Amino acid sequence: MNLYKINDPGFLKDLNNDELTALAADIREFLIKSCAETGGHIGANLGVVELTLSLHKHFNSPIDKFLFDVGHQAYIHKILTGRIHQFDSLRQYKGLCGFPKLRESEHDVWEAGHSSTSLSAAMGMAKARDINKDNYHVVPIIGDGALTGGMALEALNHIGSDRTNMTIILNDNEMSIAPNVGAMHNMLGRIRTNTQYNKVKHDAEDFLQRLPQVGTKLRDVADKLKDSLKYLVVDGIFFEELGIKYIGPVDGHDFDDLARAIESSKDYNGPVIVHVITKKGKGYHPAEDDKIGKWHGLGPYKIETGEVIGTKSSISWSEFMSNTVLEYAKNDKRIVAVTPAMPVGSKLTKFQNELPEQFFDVGIAEQHAVTMAAGLAASGMKPYLAIYSTFLQRGYDQLLHDVDRQNLNVFIGIDRSGLVGADGETHQGVFDISFISTLPNITLMMPRDEKEAGQMIDFSLNAEGPVAMRYPRGNISGIDMNIERPALTKGSWEVLKEGTDIAIISFGPTLDIAMEASAELKQAGIDARVVNARFIKPMDENMLKDIGSSDIPVITVEESMLNGGLGSMIAGFFADWRFKNNMKRIGIDGIYVEHGDVNKLLSDIGISSSSIVESAQSLLEISDEKSEN
Amino acid sequence: MNLYKINDPGFLKDLNNDELTALAADIREFLIKSCAETGGHIGANLGVVELTLSLHKHFNSPIDKFLFDVGHQAYIHKILTGRIHQFDSLRQYKGLCGFPKLRESEHDVWEAGHSSTSLSAAMGMAKARDINKDNYHVVPIIGDGALTGGMALEALNHIGSDRTNMTIILNDNEMSIAPNVGAMHNMLGRIRTNTQYNKVKHDAEDFLQRLPQVGTKLRDVADKLKDSLKYLVVDGIFFEELGIKYIGPVDGHDFDDLARAIESSKDYNGPVIVHVITKKGKGYHPAEDDKIGKWHGLGPYKIETGEVIGTKSSISWSEFMSNTVLEYAKNDKRIVAVTPAMPVGSKLTKFQNELPEQFFDVGIAEQHAVTMAAGLAASGMKPYLAIYSTFLQRGYDQLLHDVDRQNLNVFIGIDRSGLVGADGETHQGVFDISFISTLPNITLMMPRDEKEAGQMIDFSLNAEGPVAMRYPRGNISGIDMNIERPALTKGSWEVLKEGTDIAIISFGPTLDIAMEASAELKQAGIDARVVNARFIKPMDENMLKDIGSSDIPVITVEESMLNGGLGSMIAGFFADWRFKNNMKRIGIDGIYVEHGDVNKLLSDIGISSSSIVESAQSLLEISDEKSEN
Repeated sequence: MNLYKINDPGFLKDLNNDELTALAADIREFLIKSCAETGGHIGANLGVVELTLSLHKHFNSPIDKFLFDVGHQAYIHKILTGRIHQFDSLRQYKGLCGFPKLRESEHDVWEAGHSSTSLSAAMGMAKARDINKDNYHVVPIIGDGALTGGMALEALNHIGSDRTNMTIILNDNEMSIAPNVGAMHNMLGRIRTNTQYNKVKHDAEDFLQRLPQVGTKLRDVADKLKDSLKYLVVDGIFFEELGIKYIGPVDGHDFDDLARAIESSKDYNGPVIVHVITKKGKGYHPAEDDKIGKWHGLGPYKIETGEVIGTKSSISWSEFMSNTVLEYAKNDKRIVAVTPAMPVGSKLTKFQNELPEQFFDVGIAEQHAVTMAAGLAASGMKPYLAIYSTFLQRGYDQLLHDVDRQNLNVFIGIDRSGLVGADGETHQGVFDISFISTLPNITLMMPRDEKEAGQMIDFSLNAEGPVAMRYPRGNISGIDMNIERPALTKGSWEVLKEGTDIAIISFGPTLDIAMEASAELKQAGIDARVVNARFIKPMDENMLKDIGSSDIPVITVEESMLNGGLGSMIAGFFADWRFKNNMKRIGIDGIYVEHGDVNKLLSDIGISSSSIVESAQSLLEISDEKSEN
Repeated sequence: MNLYKINDPGFLKDLNNDELTALAADIREFLIKSCAETGGHIGANLGVVELTLSLHKHFNSPIDKFLFDVGHQAYIHKILTGRIHQFDSLRQYKGLCGFPKLRESEHDVWEAGHSSTSLSAAMGMAKARDINKDNYHVVPIIGDGALTGGMALEALNHIGSDRTNMTIILNDNEMSIAPNVGAMHNMLGRIRTNTQYNKVKHDAEDFLQRLPQVGTKLRDVADKLKDSLKYLVVDGIFFEELGIKYIGPVDGHDFDDLARAIESSKDYNGPVIVHVITKKGKGYHPAEDDKIGKWHGLGPYKIETGEVIGTKSSISWSEFMSNTVLEYAKNDKRIVAVTPAMPVGSKLTKFQNELPEQFFDVGIAEQHAVTMAAGLAASGMKPYLAIYSTFLQRGYDQLLHDVDRQNLNVFIGIDRSGLVGADGETHQGVFDISFISTLPNITLMMPRDEKEAGQMIDFSLNAEGPVAMRYPRGNISGIDMNIERPALTKGSWEVLKEGTDIAIISFGPTLDIAMEASAELKQAGIDARVVNARFIKPMDENMLKDIGSSDIPVITVEESMLNGGLGSMIAGFFADWRFKNNMKRIGIDGIYVEHGDVNKLLSDIGISSSSIVESAQSLLEISDEKSEN
């Protein structure tokens, strides 16, 4: 059918299975073509075509509430709710969001980007419904990977005991992002393979019915045994123990099976989990054959071959970090790597293959990852925890209470620091400086290039106490690393370019922008000093005093929130020391930054050479006025 | 025996059950007397006397590692490791810590104060042991309440699948702090009451053995049935499903039962959970009879009656907050209260009793609590989430990603904001301003007294978007509330005392100190303005501009971390607006504040009227010098 004519999912009610099957094929064809142009979470979405069609057929959105956990698997939902026209702008500047978005549609009732939030939110919505005596369905759709996130388990514990009506769709594709790990994954695997137990139970009941009634004691035991057979619901007993009715396993690509399961969940009074088995990447071979999670989310690709277009020959920051730490770890078994479900994203697969004993993928479990690293360090190890900036937010209390407070030697590689682009506001790595800089013991750094990164890794693996090193999304510049790496002194900054009129202080990738601005300023006759504040904490107090006492204007530039950021710390330091330099803090000020091309976003925020140049000129005019007075 | 002669737990190996029983009685007597003087977590410790003795008898600390989850139940451990002499200073300034403390003893290998961290830390320690090919035991001791914290479940998921050797002691006293809630609690309850299922299983196996062999098909089914009976390990099947061997239930006050279970856990190759049933408060009637959690942790009491000594007649901040919100909720069913296991601590029991439909205790599950509140708000409700400042740290990502980013009408009452005293560095509520002030949408306030608190509650329940209101530990001052409560304008500050020489800016309880300082300054001829910065975010920009343009010195005073705090935000604001006021930020600068009397701690930090007076004089001297130049 013509997908572009879909405005509302209501038409699905009238479709039979053949029509649904044809529609699923059309949607798959569209998604494969569309994502080939824009990139996106193609694998996750191809797996849930039949599931999403069935949900919209058997429930009534937006009266019934769908909550897509993590949210990147909502493309079919977006198509069915009239948004196909916007797919050419998917995840692009001002374009269609890659996640559910309240302002896009009344069918999007909950936004997510981080995993494992849907069950708690669903519990809130279900309680609101019950208090208001409404009677719609609340339907969280959660993957098997996200189910192991602690907050999802907290929610299950509450939902099961309160017996709150809701239909939990467990989308089990055996992958979170990478292949799943953990005991719950193993348990779900047993369910998938051991469906014969249900058959055994049925046969056993039958068998006990037909037993001769031989004596009171035996009959009594037989009765008790029959009674106990209710515990032989081996499938899903984990959920049944938590008070949640289990239905499944269901073939997630079979409309009949899905219909039966969903309809029976609607009749049940209490919480139900429908265990749906899907195949990630279903219907597109390169994605379907993916064993490691490469097709989870990616950029544009060639449809015929699945070859990703435009991948630079240089390696990514993640790869550089992981492989550099790996070289150390080969000679020091105290160095172990920990990742919360991101061996692919954080490029730790080589580490995993070469030193499996020193590698731990703990699944989507950031809190556990941070405190396990603390436990390792408390026993004399030197754990390297690679974690995305945005996901470290979830381990904040653990970083504070377990790592920093006990001053343990944990080395945290903060991946995807700064703006990340297409994934948008739930994924921008712009809060970590603010929440880390307050912690008393930790050292926080960001390198401007891989040479400095090498120095920082040297520093970190020899440091006492916790160290965090930020690095951005994207590729390294490709410096020849066969160079000397002088040791870094804690808290030491570097003057990248001398200058006497004004000081621009920045760190990491935005130093390039600062250097560009200084070149432009030179044209205008302004001699700008550029300072690399590679240690965000502790700051280089000597250099700050030098700048402070020279009384030249200061511009700070950071791809991060202003409150609690470097510029704010410098303003505080100047206040403490009573330096009166005119100052401009450039950074993100009280907004969530949406998805889109990073350079466009930076320019909107004012993190650009032209913005620095303007600020410099403005600050110098003020200074001139002041000195003229 | 003379407990004061104990230096090391080694002597326990030689004690028989009678001697252990006598020792347990001596320890109980000591604890009841000692805590009657100092206060402390008496209930939790009385419950684990036999358990702790058994652990030290059957394991070898410090070679074997004990990790006390939450940590407040380690008093007996402290006695057995030679620290009884320090109990008269328990939880007091420079005295014995109420939690395990590395620097106190080599037997303390892990510090905690927040719950649910022990399993993750134990996993790290066990992995370190295995990599180093050591062979000691790792023994986390976790309560049934703490087990429902998400990170504990994340850890179980990892431990079970990796089959890592460790003995998990599940101390099940049916209470977390308040009586436990949740499906896991119900499950543990079934285990406690339904031990007959094990008997049924045994009988059934016996029965099947004695069946006549009638035909191949029937025999085949019987065989399969026998095979399936392994799933009839009803006790602990939840843990078995996660790959963790279950031993129990064990009577936690019976030395024989404990010995058998612990010894058998040591022989097992893989993770074991020993389910120990204890009675909180065991051996002291007032604590034993406690049904709501009052005896969890408390101040000094009269031994004979259990009457708590020195409770002021005034009500606590928690009680004031909860009851005021309750009055609103009676007339507006959209107002619902959510607490993570703190109905007693946050004084929500009256709310719970009067409006049970509008009340949710979600257990120790801060992440779920925050996002469930978001889900409620997304459905048009007005949730009030009462949560301790230090525990809100665990819901940081949820506060950011779910509540603030979606700009939902969640009202957060931040209980125990500022220093808390006896519980020490894991419980001081001094980080919340720093991690909240960075969030784009939320409003953050702190009242100076209950009248202003009333105004803030009015404001919060009528606000659009998230609002957080801090309130301290301790009692309200007892103002007659039959007064008018004019509406507060968002971001408006108040001049408490006019003054032209210097401005002291503070909020909450430290305003009293600021007022005291201003009185002292008046004696010295200095006319200080005192500003009540009741809105920490957004700040009162007009008032700041007024202060800035007057160029008088500014002192900021906050019982909170300096980085990211109000003083830092003001320094940033002054930098942005190029105000050059001399400034002094008073607050907590890069340290964790230990336990002890709050006034002593404040004085150490420099949050005192004398410190403000000194700063004022110093700032005014500098200003004088400047104007003389």
